[in-house]
Amino acid sequence: MSSICLTSFKWAPPFAQGLVRDLRVRWALVVAGLPYTEKLLAFGEQNSAAHRALQPFGQVPVYEEDGLTLFETGSILTHIGERSEVLLPRDAAKRARAITWMYAALNSVEPHVQHLTTIDLFFANEDWAKMRRPAAEKMALGRLNAVAASLEGRDYLEGEFTAGDLLMISVLRLLRHTTLVKDIPVLANYQARGEARPAFQRALAAQLANFARNEPKAA
Amino acid sequence: MSSICLTSFKWAPPFAQGLVRDLRVRWALVVAGLPYTEKLLAFGEQNSAAHRALQPFGQVPVYEEDGLTLFETGSILTHIGERSEVLLPRDAAKRARAITWMYAALNSVEPHVQHLTTIDLFFANEDWAKMRRPAAEKMALGRLNAVAASLEGRDYLEGEFTAGDLLMISVLRLLRHTTLVKDIPVLANYQARGEARPAFQRALAAQLANFARNEPKAA
Repeated sequence: MSSICLTSFKWAPPFAQGLVRDLRVRWALVVAGLPYTEKLLAFGEQNSAAHRALQPFGQVPVYEEDGLTLFETGSILTHIGERSEVLLPRDAAKRARAITWMYAALNSVEPHVQHLTTIDLFFANEDWAKMRRPAAEKMALGRLNAVAASLEGRDYLEGEFTAGDLLMISVLRLLRHTTLVKDIPVLANYQARGEARPAFQRALAAQLANFARNEPKAA
Repeated sequence: MSSICLTSFKWAPPFAQGLVRDLRVRWALVVAGLPYTEKLLAFGEQNSAAHRALQPFGQVPVYEEDGLTLFETGSILTHIGERSEVLLPRDAAKRARAITWMYAALNSVEPHVQHLTTIDLFFANEDWAKMRRPAAEKMALGRLNAVAASLEGRDYLEGEFTAGDLLMISVLRLLRHTTLVKDIPVLANYQARGEARPAFQRALAAQLANFARNEPKAA
């Protein structure tokens, strides 16, 4: 029996709750039916030398299992996917297509979504952000429309749910402060379909339970 | 014998030559010793409905092999890596670490590098870009320093060259218009080490030969 430990945060502010990247790994672990323990960092600890020895960019999640240390959500999901035919189909062509959507979510969609989200959540009042936001929204929207076109007539990107959908739906969730996804029904329905999956609900509850337990006390 | 076809551009302007993403796939194909044919798009064709049916975001490269169509460089490299122990080691733990660096290059480093590059190459004279550049450079530099720390005392990220290095070195090359990499000797040496590999040189020559052949004639 392997021993899996997931590193995340003790607590995150409300704007980040339900969006911290360890949720993606929790979701995959529930799908694969793999138990795990947790190591929870206080805010700031992610920049310690000890943590950066495991995660060079000072972020979460970190995944540790029997002496193997992995970071990068996509990589961790590939590793977990070896033990779940739902996440990564055994058929070589289907598997390659699922991995294509994993990279698409993280490399072709998330950077544009994250750029817009960063502007909105952290820099909304800065002059450069006001000037740049329309173009940033247009870029993100272009990517969203491409994903919507790929979903036309199917429930998931390749028909059946894979780790590619797990990541794409997680990326769409970053836009909850906007109406961009809501305004594209095929995407909104896709996100809702993913979020309704019991494994997602269990993973989300696990992340939120930590944050509730570690809520800072008012002074 | 499988039949591999790579889609790229007929020509690209000088600022993009040697950086177009198909170079990463060419490099991997040379490492794996796999022959391939090419489909070259005229500028603008990447947005056609026919191309978007293969590549939803209207980009290159596209990889086709015996009825399988893949996009996303990381995914294509994973697929090619199945046939090259250099790109993806067979040992499960080493393979998982190589994949971690593939995602790190594309998801943790490239978005910040690309953000800075986009500002410099396309928007240098815009007010928002002038205001935002210092912070964009600082973010990119933070990621570069993290990669440099991970390289300390070794030639490649995991000691031996893998697909993770292929992608990380390709991302560093995007900064050739700046001194950011040059100013960090461990990174500059790492990039030079990668670029000196014969497979990289052959792949680069293949991309540049197309561009030279299809150079637009002066009117």
